[in-house]
Parts: sequence; structure tokens; C-alpha cells
Amino acid sequence: MKKKIKMGMIGGGSGSFIGAIHRIAAFLDGEIKLVSGCFSSNFSNSIATGKSLFMHEGRIYENYREMIEEEAKMPDGERIDFISIVTPNHLHFEPAMLALEKGFHVILDKPMTFSLEEALLLEKKAKESGLLFAVTHTYTGYPMVKEAKERIRKGELGHLRRIYVEYPQGWLAQDIADNNKQAAWRVDPKRSGKAGCMGDIGTHCFNLVEYITGLKATEVCAELNTFVPGRLLDDDGVVLIRYDGGVKCVLMASQIAIGEENNLKIRIYGDKGSLEWNQHDPNTMLLKWPDKPTQMLRVGQHYLSALARFNTRTPAGHPEGYIEAFANIYRNFALALHSIKRGKKPRAEYLDFPTVEDGVRGMKFIETVVASSQSEEKWTKFID
Amino acid sequence: MKKKIKMGMIGGGSGSFIGAIHRIAAFLDGEIKLVSGCFSSNFSNSIATGKSLFMHEGRIYENYREMIEEEAKMPDGERIDFISIVTPNHLHFEPAMLALEKGFHVILDKPMTFSLEEALLLEKKAKESGLLFAVTHTYTGYPMVKEAKERIRKGELGHLRRIYVEYPQGWLAQDIADNNKQAAWRVDPKRSGKAGCMGDIGTHCFNLVEYITGLKATEVCAELNTFVPGRLLDDDGVVLIRYDGGVKCVLMASQIAIGEENNLKIRIYGDKGSLEWNQHDPNTMLLKWPDKPTQMLRVGQHYLSALARFNTRTPAGHPEGYIEAFANIYRNFALALHSIKRGKKPRAEYLDFPTVEDGVRGMKFIETVVASSQSEEKWTKFID
Amino acid sequence: MKKKIKMGMIGGGSGSFIGAIHRIAAFLDGEIKLVSGCFSSNFSNSIATGKSLFMHEGRIYENYREMIEEEAKMPDGERIDFISIVTPNHLHFEPAMLALEKGFHVILDKPMTFSLEEALLLEKKAKESGLLFAVTHTYTGYPMVKEAKERIRKGELGHLRRIYVEYPQGWLAQDIADNNKQAAWRVDPKRSGKAGCMGDIGTHCFNLVEYITGLKATEVCAELNTFVPGRLLDDDGVVLIRYDGGVKCVLMASQIAIGEENNLKIRIYGDKGSLEWNQHDPNTMLLKWPDKPTQMLRVGQHYLSALARFNTRTPAGHPEGYIEAFANIYRNFALALHSIKRGKKPRAEYLDFPTVEDGVRGMKFIETVVASSQSEEKWTKFID
Amino acid sequence: MKKKIKMGMIGGGSGSFIGAIHRIAAFLDGEIKLVSGCFSSNFSNSIATGKSLFMHEGRIYENYREMIEEEAKMPDGERIDFISIVTPNHLHFEPAMLALEKGFHVILDKPMTFSLEEALLLEKKAKESGLLFAVTHTYTGYPMVKEAKERIRKGELGHLRRIYVEYPQGWLAQDIADNNKQAAWRVDPKRSGKAGCMGDIGTHCFNLVEYITGLKATEVCAELNTFVPGRLLDDDGVVLIRYDGGVKCVLMASQIAIGEENNLKIRIYGDKGSLEWNQHDPNTMLLKWPDKPTQMLRVGQHYLSALARFNTRTPAGHPEGYIEAFANIYRNFALALHSIKRGKKPRAEYLDFPTVEDGVRGMKFIETVVASSQSEEKWTKFID
Repeated sequence: MKKKIKMGMIGGGSGSFIGAIHRIAAFLDGEIKLVSGCFSSNFSNSIATGKSLFMHEGRIYENYREMIEEEAKMPDGERIDFISIVTPNHLHFEPAMLALEKGFHVILDKPMTFSLEEALLLEKKAKESGLLFAVTHTYTGYPMVKEAKERIRKGELGHLRRIYVEYPQGWLAQDIADNNKQAAWRVDPKRSGKAGCMGDIGTHCFNLVEYITGLKATEVCAELNTFVPGRLLDDDGVVLIRYDGGVKCVLMASQIAIGEENNLKIRIYGDKGSLEWNQHDPNTMLLKWPDKPTQMLRVGQHYLSALARFNTRTPAGHPEGYIEAFANIYRNFALALHSIKRGKKPRAEYLDFPTVEDGVRGMKFIETVVASSQSEEKWTKFID
Repeated sequence: MKKKIKMGMIGGGSGSFIGAIHRIAAFLDGEIKLVSGCFSSNFSNSIATGKSLFMHEGRIYENYREMIEEEAKMPDGERIDFISIVTPNHLHFEPAMLALEKGFHVILDKPMTFSLEEALLLEKKAKESGLLFAVTHTYTGYPMVKEAKERIRKGELGHLRRIYVEYPQGWLAQDIADNNKQAAWRVDPKRSGKAGCMGDIGTHCFNLVEYITGLKATEVCAELNTFVPGRLLDDDGVVLIRYDGGVKCVLMASQIAIGEENNLKIRIYGDKGSLEWNQHDPNTMLLKWPDKPTQMLRVGQHYLSALARFNTRTPAGHPEGYIEAFANIYRNFALALHSIKRGKKPRAEYLDFPTVEDGVRGMKFIETVVASSQSEEKWTKFID
Repeated sequence: MKKKIKMGMIGGGSGSFIGAIHRIAAFLDGEIKLVSGCFSSNFSNSIATGKSLFMHEGRIYENYREMIEEEAKMPDGERIDFISIVTPNHLHFEPAMLALEKGFHVILDKPMTFSLEEALLLEKKAKESGLLFAVTHTYTGYPMVKEAKERIRKGELGHLRRIYVEYPQGWLAQDIADNNKQAAWRVDPKRSGKAGCMGDIGTHCFNLVEYITGLKATEVCAELNTFVPGRLLDDDGVVLIRYDGGVKCVLMASQIAIGEENNLKIRIYGDKGSLEWNQHDPNTMLLKWPDKPTQMLRVGQHYLSALARFNTRTPAGHPEGYIEAFANIYRNFALALHSIKRGKKPRAEYLDFPTVEDGVRGMKFIETVVASSQSEEKWTKFID
Repeated sequence: MKKKIKMGMIGGGSGSFIGAIHRIAAFLDGEIKLVSGCFSSNFSNSIATGKSLFMHEGRIYENYREMIEEEAKMPDGERIDFISIVTPNHLHFEPAMLALEKGFHVILDKPMTFSLEEALLLEKKAKESGLLFAVTHTYTGYPMVKEAKERIRKGELGHLRRIYVEYPQGWLAQDIADNNKQAAWRVDPKRSGKAGCMGDIGTHCFNLVEYITGLKATEVCAELNTFVPGRLLDDDGVVLIRYDGGVKCVLMASQIAIGEENNLKIRIYGDKGSLEWNQHDPNTMLLKWPDKPTQMLRVGQHYLSALARFNTRTPAGHPEGYIEAFANIYRNFALALHSIKRGKKPRAEYLDFPTVEDGVRGMKFIETVVASSQSEEKWTKFID
């Protein structure tokens, strides 16, 4: 009998938003089974979480170290295949490094680590180990984002010129750290790292641009702001980014934009055509032309690329959303693992998920924009 | 250890759109495990399907009768808890009836049966048995549809007056039955039943109105059309419906509306306010007022009703879609089953899924509109 | 020196919404000069209105009869060329007939008259006289409505099948006749005629379909409703309309749809493609196809038809609206008059405004739907 | 008899887009009469234009100097009241200055002049003269822009924090200067001035922010780009702007954004609420709140401010657009002139049009962003 991929999870106890999302994403396609976990630094919370997930108590561990070491000793067929790490940023590096050392594939929440140094160490280790390493820059999981990538790769927009990417949110417009677990660590430099808003959502924007266009940033001009009194990290910012080949980008991210949810939107203009995609209507992409009407492309339609269709579950007209985009990362990761376990090279579309390299790019983005924001020079070289 | 709910499936072999959706819906929340199945009348297709789903070959059966009977003999803790039936309409009744007779809870795809007579027999049996019986009128699974129901229940719109409900699709605008398995049975009166478009999607509209408003139809005036030459069933139609209390409705369904996907939309007007919801943007609902600005309600926001929030997995800004709406039926069904298995009365929100009674209403709708369409009388009493 | 076209106006005193709109529409393109008027049955109101419009007091008359007769006696070059009549429905016929008798061209507000009989008399007189006669079914003045007509005329949608046309409004959801002059006469059968909602806005829908498609209605099935207690005319209704060639239409109009403004929307489905246009976003039209992405056509773009471009004043991106659509009727009427005055046959695009024949069709629509609504027969022949 | 305001026009001969718009805007409300003009440097073009506008040939002049001087000699009641100047930028200063010197009120197209120096001279002269001086920053004429101003003035959004203003266009994405008169002068530094895109549309964005918020810019960080090879002026750019009170703004303007028309959009975030307005749907404004649903405000509704209602001609549901917004400048200017001619102080709402001071601010904006773009310093003080 073919076996499901076996997953362990670190973090994601009760009260964790993103842990629950990771699990749904893992379960949705029926390829993955959660069998092991250390969900919380509070062991009884961890056990309660595991039980509510129909897990054996024996596979719920008191700390991540014990978990990784114990699982590593288990026999083939029982041992977990990969570990999903969904803790706050400052708790990413150590379990991820240990997981790699013990031979586990890894899925890690973003931004990848607390510091760039940690990220570089993980990248080195991941590459040496040959293990799969995904970083959940979720938005690249949307079929239309993949379509955008394909259209640009084929040259439909011509030579790119101008990019607008924006991600306004409003949930941190007031000081809610005392009452909101999600907010608390994100605004705390000891847990979040050097950047707040830019780390949490600016990195998503940055990843989205590099994923879709294949361009690499060369220099930036950043202005980071902290609007909520007493807050220690940025809660808003704008970054002008210059890419190879003269492409110019404005990246706008804000967490004080009252009334905005996750209005991630990207517009890319080339010298032959343009595209526009918005996470609030994720199943539509606009293609714009100089000499003919704007086209509304829709997920599920046969005219989309093979890559977009591979990442869609339903025919057109059945809106897919954030959870399916997230699940595409898990599903593709699982499909790649199945291939590896059978000794095969995974197909290219299975490997189409954000990797440790994307994670490192994100950390470099954070370092660079924080440096630029503190600089009086207009342009700061992208740290590379 | 707490156990997942165990599910068997009849139908849904390779090439079935809706079978795959049912499985995703069942898996998504991690409450349900697929352990048994008879996916196709072709046994080797069935086995291949089961294997790809990581199932034990021993629980894949050659026909539904064998499956139900064998499963019924299994010991507690191993036997399936419920059966999901996702075959074409003419193959709903017999397995559903046998499942009930053998003590299995049932989830059945819509429209409920081939004929009203079958539906009434199933309803009778289901009620006698006390078993859970869901019919997958998916659209009532959307959080905003539940919000609409709650707002009207609380009287926010006042006394209702006028309803517009519409469901234009374009996928059957040409004769594609030869090449498309989904199309083939839907346009075949031997497999689909008395109605084509009205059975397939008209019933969704009808269910949506009755679910949201709690109203019961009293008489109808229907015009069903067949636009594609040679087609034997309706592929388009309009129904004027009168409800208790003088409420007037127009129901429009079409499968020849080129370029439309599943544009299900409902607008309800009362004497104090109105609401509008559209499946293409399912996370938004508009509330309209005579004396103040229109409000855009959004899924995931704290100002929504408890019922809507109970049926949402992510915070605002993470678009949920069709799959999550579908999964709400499975999840609520599973939660109710957990309660029943523990000897408890399920909470009201667990039982908030479409039932055998909704299925019967749908079959009565089909009977009534077909009769009305053939009648020269303007108004035809709703069969009840 | 070339002279502007000289206009007289009957009705449109202070407090008249539609009179002010007619004047703006007449002034906008600088082709027309208002020189004579009888704006109100109250002479001092009439004089005050005329003065505020920079008119000579000598050309403001106490009643329409005096105005028409006095103007008719004036010398060429001073006498008005045409009369615009913007009174309530029951006061359309007499001044319009007298205007024709005295040789004046006429622009008349819709619906054309109080009764079909009056309309037929006017039509006969207008045709005999050879004078221009426009009826302000405004919505056909929109460039995108003209584009729709052109696309269908060229066969781009193939053979038409299904039409949805709707016009929900909310302003009469309560009984406001006592305080609102606009509402008062519209809900009064002595001034409005046989129909309320269907006369006021149902006729717009009907005209829009016939204008765009060139089809003629053959039979209808209507349900008219009066939701506001005590109201004597319909304030809501639905009409199923059958057209030549098997085309089916649903026409929905309502004045009790709280929160709706003038949500006139039309969707037309053929066997090759479809179109959608909405008055709330009047500069966009969607074209939908079975095998390629939906196209968003925009007013002002070069890819539009000559007819659409002729009725547009600004390049793309400068939203034009209701006033410009209305002005297109006046401008085209004025251009046609200029030609006639120079002894030339007006160009076809000048004559592209709704005429006395459209007005008569509207009155037949009212007669037919009122009869159908009162009938127990399902289908009522369109009165012709 | 009350007299219309008499207007003369300089520029706006055949082929001028903006001249025709100014005339429509002037005519629409029936307050203004065009009686004098010098439409082109080519006299026969000028005469032809004037004749087509029903003007006396005697009031069409060979050059602007002759026109202003001759008109100045005319008797009261015959002489024009104001002059509208719609020539390319480099031909604004001289006629405007002469008009002021001869006692004529002025309406001038934007950007105000070729250089800041000219603008300051005009401002000085206009203030000394006491004459009315409008600069047609059209977008502030929209009712919803006025509503935005009023809401912020009343403190509904609290203390402002973040502003996004953008104006992407695509019409200059290729080099079209040879074939397009509109394009030719705009991309020519000898006629347009120091800036291309930033002068033509960046100034609109800048004016919109200052008008709505009442804030004054203090420093900027600009990156101007020229994407089309061989072009001498910027055709794209981004400006970070800091305002008094710590308010941060990103201003994005582009003329190479293929497929965009005039997508002017502004979003303003305060610490209590936010607003969003888009010129493509100008009759709607969104108000967003931390704790309740987003509100869609609509032009024509009674809940709007007196200022917004004063600048609206039709009830809700009759879309008004760019022409009406433009006409609001002319109408308010004319109403103010009427007051002045009657020796009265114009009401505040009459004076609510962009003035010589706004024009000067726009020229300072151009100077500052061009300097900033050439600077290696991050921040450049706003020239004041």
C-alpha cells in the first residue's frame, strides 16, 4: 500500500493562527499525515493540541530537541518524513538546523529566521544535505501568480519597466500587543528580528516580485515608519527598488492602513503589455495591452498555462483562495518527496515552491531596507 | 486516543469532478478519514483510485452493495461511520437507501434523487432511522450565506418583499456531451431526471433562498428552454416564485450563458434594508439601507454573527472559497457525528447543513417547475 | 454667421429634476440656445425660472398654448426651431400635438403619453408632418449601448438566445408621495397613466433591448406588484418576454429595491458570445467568449465602433456619464436639424436617437404588461 | 435681463483636446457665453474654430495680444469678463499676465507655467489685481473629492498618517510624438518645461493631496525615469513626500503604464479611519473603519456634505464624470464672478476652485522633484 507522507510539526499550539493554516494546507489534498508534534513550550497545551488532532500521545513531545532526536531513531515507515516549523521568527533557526542535521526535510514559516546570519547557515546546511527545504511565502502558491510568471517568462509583456507592489493591512493600527498573541511577537524586536512590517509582509511583496519576474534587486531606497507610539519596530514603509535591466519598483507595505485586510496587489508593466493581480480577487488576473481590450483571465480556464492548471483543483467558477494557495506548497512538497522516496528526480512543477534561497533573499531584503532606512544616502546596494 | 470519523465513498472514480471535491472537503479539517470505497462501476478504475488515495485494497469494493454489506459486518472502531454518495442522479437512491438500512449515516450529492418518489422514500427512511443525512447544496456552506440567514432571522431587513436569485453558466452552450463526462449524464434524461439545468443548478438557487429566508414557496410560473439543438432537457429557464407572506422571487438559471462561470448571485429586499451576495466574491456581502451608506461586510471580521464565524477558518483578508464552503458541510456533519458517537445531542451549529428535507424540497421544485413549464396556466401550485 | 438651434421648453420649472437635466443636455455641446419657455402652470414660477436662465421675459409664456401660437408667428431666424416637453405624462399629448401642428420639431420626455391612443395619434401626426420627434429614452445615448448595438448587428455574438435586463431602484420603497414632487405624480394613475414602475423604468429596459438587438417582442408573461400599502400603481414587476427568433428575455424593474440607485444592467447571450453593460459603470462593456478571456471594452478607445466614438467627447479615462448620454440625444437632434435647415438629409448617425416609434413601442409595452399581469393566461400577445 | 458671464478663449483650436473640454465645461451649466477667441497661431484655423462655435467673426483675433487689447477697449456689457487660456505650457505666462494687466479674470490650464519664476510673477500680479484666477486642476472638481476634504476637515479619520496617491497612464508607452499633437508638446522640454510626466499628471496628484488634506509638503525623495528611448523628459516617477505633522505619502505617476487610462486613485489613512477614491469610479468613495464594515458613499445621496451636494447636478444613480467635475470649476468661477459684478462677496463654496496659489504649489512641486531626482541626497527640502 502506498503511504502518505508523514509530517511532524513544531509550534502551532492553540491560539496560533498560522499553525492551524499549515495543518489545513497539509491535510487538504490527502497526501500528508500529521503524526508527530511539539506544538507549544507548554507541554499540556501541546498534548491537548495533539489529541484534538487525533494524534497518538506518544508522538507528542515536550520540546523540539526531544522530538527531532526521538523521531530520528524511529524505523523507516514510521519515522516522520519532514518537519513543519511554525514558531515565531526567533525560534526558527535552531529546530530547522537540527532537523536538517538529523536528516529531515523542512517546511519553515517566513520570514526565514531572526537574522541573515542564521539564514545563511541554514541555506548552507540545506544545500549540503540535499534535503528539501520550503519557506512558506504563500502567495506564490496562487495559480494566477504562477500564470503571471509564465506569461512574463514567455515574453508576453516584452521588456519589463515598472512594478507596483503593495500590501496594506490595518490590524496593527492601534497598540494591541497586550491582548493579541499574533501581534505581540510581531512587534517585539526580540522575537521578530530587525523589521516588523517589512519582515512580516514586506518580504512577501519582495518574494512575489522576484518569483514572478525572475529579476534580482540591485539597490533600494527605503523609508520605514513607526506610527503607533511606543512601538519598537516599523509598522509601515515604502521601498524603491531597482532591478537588473533598469526595472523600477515601488514596494509599499503597511500594517496601520485601517480597514485594509491583506490587500496584496501587484502590477507589472512591460513595453508590450501589463498585468495586474490582487489577492482579494485571486482567481482573476488582468492582462492589458496598448491596442486591444483588457483581458480578464480566470483560474480554471483551459487557456491558462500548464503550471497554473497544475495548481488548481476545481473548474472555473469555484473560487479557490488562500488555503488552496498554501496547500499548493504542501502538496508540491509532498509530491516531490514521494518522487525522492521512490528514487526519482521530482518533476519541475513539484519543485515549484519557495525554497531556502527565497528565504535567504527575504532576509537580505530585511537587512537592506533597514540599513537604507537609517541611511542618508539615497541608494543602498542590495546586500548580496 | 480520539478517532477520526471514518468515511466510505460510492462514486468519484477518476474523471469525476465532484468526487474529488467531496474528498478534499472531507480531508481539509482533518476530522475525517477515507477508509472504504467503491469509486466506479469499473473495478480496476476503482482500485486505482483507492490506491492513489492511500487506501487499503481490502476496503475497495467491486460494487456498492458488497461495500455496504461488508462494511456493516465490521467491528466497531473499524467499520465506516458514514457513506458519501457522489454518483450521477439515477444512481443515488439505491445505495443511499441501502446505507440507511444498514445503519450508516449518509452524505448525498444533489439533486437528491432521480425522482421525487425516491426522495420521499429516502426522507421517510432517514427520519425513521434517526441517522444523519446531508445533501450537498454547497452554497449554504459559505459563511456569508450563513450571515445573510442570521441577519434576516434577526429582522434587520424588515418584512421581505422581493428576491432576485440567478445562476448563469456557459459551459453547456454547445453540444459537448460526447466529449465531456460531466456534461454527458447531466443532459441525459435517463441519468439526470426530469430536469437538466433546473435540476443541476436551479435547485441550488431554490435551496439558497429557502435556507436564507426560511420561506416556503407556494406557487410558481416557469418557462424552461432548450437552446442547444437536439438536447433533451432544459438548458435554461426562469421561474417566478411566490412565497408565504407575499414575497416575490425571480429565479434565473442558465447553462448556455457563454462566458459565465458559476455566477450564483442573490439579492433580497425587505422594507427596512437589503442584502446582496455573489459567489464570485464570496467573502463580501453588501447590506443596503434607505438612509445610510451601503456596508460591505467581510468574512473573518469580528462584527459577523457567531454562525458565520463558526464556519470560517482564517482571519479576514485570507479569501476562502468553494472548497471551504463544501468542507463546512463535511466538518459540521463530522462534528455532529462525534457528538452522537459520544452519546451527546449535537450543538445547533453542527446540524447547520442541508439535510434530506432540503433534498426533498429540491425534488419538489424540479417536479413543480417542469409541470409549470408545460402548463398554459400562469400559476402552478408548489407540489407539497 | 452660423446660428445655434433655438429651443423652447414646456415644463421644467423650479423643483423639476428632469427639466434641469434636459437643459444641461441641451447646453453642453453649445449647439442649442434656450430662448422661449413655459416652465410651470404657475406663471411667476415660470418667469423666475426663465430669468434665472438668462432669458428675455418676453419669451416666457403663461401657458403652452400661448407659447406655441406666439412662437409660430415669429419671423424666421427668431422663432424657435423645436420644443422640448418635460411635463408629467398626462400633460405630454396636447402640447406635443399642438407643436407638431404648428410646425415645430419636438423632444418629448418618456414614457411618451398617458395612453397608447394618444401615442398613436402623435405618431401619425409626426410622420405626416415630417418633423423630427425624439423621445428621451436616455440610456440609448450611452456610447457603450451604441457599441453593443453595433457588435450585435455585425453578428459577433452569433444568434441571440437569452437576455437579462434589470432596473432596480429603491427610492419609492416607502410612501413618500406627500413630500416628494417627483414621486407624487409618478404614483398617481391620473397623472402617470396605467403603469407606475413599468411605465417609468420598465419602458427604459424595454427600449434598451429593442434598440440594442433590433428584435421585436411577440408575447409576454408579466407579474406586476404593489408593495407599498395604499399605492395605486405597480412599484415592482417582472416580465418574461419572447422575441422573434426564439430569443427569451427576463425584464425586472423595481422601485422598492432599497439601496439600489439606477442599477440598469443588461446581459445578452448569443451562441457565439455574450455582452454585459451596467449603467453604474457605463464606460465599460464586457464581451464574453466560450474559448478566450473576457474582454473589457472601454469608452474612448480606438477599437470601438465609429458610432460609439461619434457619441463620445473625451479620450479614454475621462469618465462620461448620464448627462453626456442625455446630451447625445440633444446633440444628434440638433445636428440633424442643422442639416434639415440647410436642406440636407441628415447623416445616419445624427438620426440615431429614440423617436416617436420608440415612444409608441413603450406605450404598447405598458398596455401589454398591464393586461398580462391581470390575466390568468400565461402568455399575452404583444399589442401591435 | 440678467446676463451670462462672457468668456474669451486663447488656444483650443481644432485638434486641441483640452480646449474642447474647457468649452463643454463652460457651456454645461448655461452660465457662460463664449464671445471672443484666438484659438490658434494659424488665423484661418482660428476663424474656422470660432465659426463652428457660432461666434461673430469680429471677435476672433489673429493673436492673443490683439484680442486682449481690443476686448479691453470694449464697453461694459459687451467686453468679455474673463479669459480662458488653454495653450501649451510655454504659452501660458504672457497671455495670462497681459490679461491680468488689462483687468480680465483668468482661467488657466495646468501646470500653471513653463517655470516657477513665471508662476510667482503671475501670483504676485493676480493678488495685487484682486482678479479671480483659476488653474484647472480638474480632479478637485469631483463631488467625492470635496466630500473627502470635508470628512477630513471634520476629523473623521483622526490624525492622518499615510497617503498613497497614484496616476498611471499608458498613452506615452511608445514614442508617438510625431503623430500625436497632444503628445508632441508634452514630451518637448522647450514647450512643456522641466518635467514631463510629473508636470502633466504628477502635479494633479500633488494638488489632490493638498486640496483634500490641507497639508503642506516639507521634503521629498524623488526618482524620475525616462523609459522610452530618446525621450528628453521623465515619463514615469515616484516621489516620497513628507508633510507637516509626520504624514507620509507615496506619489506614483506614470505615462508608460500600458493599458492604464487615467487611473488616478487616492487612499488616505488616519488613526481613526481611512478613505479611498478612484477617478475610474468617481461617484463612489469608500470609508474604512477599524471596528465596523466599510461604507460605500455615493454621489447624490443626502448623507453627503453640503459642499459635495452643491457640486452635483443629478440625484444618486445618474453617474457624473470628468466633464461635470471640470464644469464645477467653471460654474463656481462664474458664480463668484456674478457676485463680484453685483458688488457682493462671493460665497465660500463659489470660491472652492483651484487658484493661482495651487498653480504655484504645482510649479514648486515640479522644481523640487526634478532637483530631488538629480540629487544623491535622500531628502530634498520642498522649495517654498
